[in-house]
Amino acid sequence: MRTAVLLMISAAACAAQQYMPDGRMMFPADYREWIYLSSGLGMTYDKSMNMGEPSFDNVFVNRAAYNSFLHTGTWPDKTVMVLEIRSSLSRGSINQGGHFEDELQGVEVHVKDGKWAFYEFGKAQAPAKIVPQTASCYSCHEKSGVVDTTFVQFYPTLLKLAKEKGTVKEGGER
Amino acid sequence: MRTAVLLMISAAACAAQQYMPDGRMMFPADYREWIYLSSGLGMTYDKSMNMGEPSFDNVFVNRAAYNSFLHTGTWPDKTVMVLEIRSSLSRGSINQGGHFEDELQGVEVHVKDGKWAFYEFGKAQAPAKIVPQTASCYSCHEKSGVVDTTFVQFYPTLLKLAKEKGTVKEGGER
Repeated sequence: MRTAVLLMISAAACAAQQYMPDGRMMFPADYREWIYLSSGLGMTYDKSMNMGEPSFDNVFVNRAAYNSFLHTGTWPDKTVMVLEIRSSLSRGSINQGGHFEDELQGVEVHVKDGKWAFYEFGKAQAPAKIVPQTASCYSCHEKSGVVDTTFVQFYPTLLKLAKEKGTVKEGGER
Repeated sequence: MRTAVLLMISAAACAAQQYMPDGRMMFPADYREWIYLSSGLGMTYDKSMNMGEPSFDNVFVNRAAYNSFLHTGTWPDKTVMVLEIRSSLSRGSINQGGHFEDELQGVEVHVKDGKWAFYEFGKAQAPAKIVPQTASCYSCHEKSGVVDTTFVQFYPTLLKLAKEKGTVKEGGER
């Protein structure tokens, strides 16, 4: 219980998103200890891009935003979603088929801080500039994200909740 | 009986594993809020079994065990690892290739409580009996798990740590 209280205090004291004085976002170094949402392998909205070994994507969200989603079915301000991209391997140890995860390839972050913004972190994990609002990620999320411009249609546990709460965009279910 | 179970839960407070008076393990209902380790798609050690649509597996571990692993590179007593199995979909919403996760198919749990034990939970998530120690999961984990009979070779962030700590079984790397 004492540990839980201490964790609550440190979580409140340290927001999931931190910025440099010049506005760049700092790499959210502890995202692997956030709440996991779901994974994909080789997901693409353009079949012609799907060449070579497929990559995994793993999605995480900060715990405070997740807890809020459980109650409301949508995202509060200060939500930080992390898309982790990893290469895949097929043969290794006793595995004889399918794919498992290997090297980190990149991290993309979607932050709701007033409005939604994207940041792309390379493997160096240095502070990242905001992706310009004219980039296609914004218009695609706006058009196809079913809950508050996010792809909850690919997060099965949250999709179920959002349906119950009635927060799925009309015509937006997969 | 109900009172007895509730008393047991409150007495054990924060333990990730809880048992019924008859020894069955209770479903770890909050495992989706534990630490995520990695995922696989269609993984198999028997090629002939890999038919039809592949399933995803997502692995989680309780936070206390994870924190201990960060320091030691191996698992403490009271470690609970959860293997969540989900069906996959390929077409849906804007997705045109690859796979994303869908319905829960089952949950298997590996618990270190004195010694390691397996429990298999169906979709009903009812309390589960221990899998007999003669089952092949025990001998396979014993033979091929590279850290303390667990498949850390498939969890890239932990594998890196275990190598640094020197806890990977000799000849056991993938």
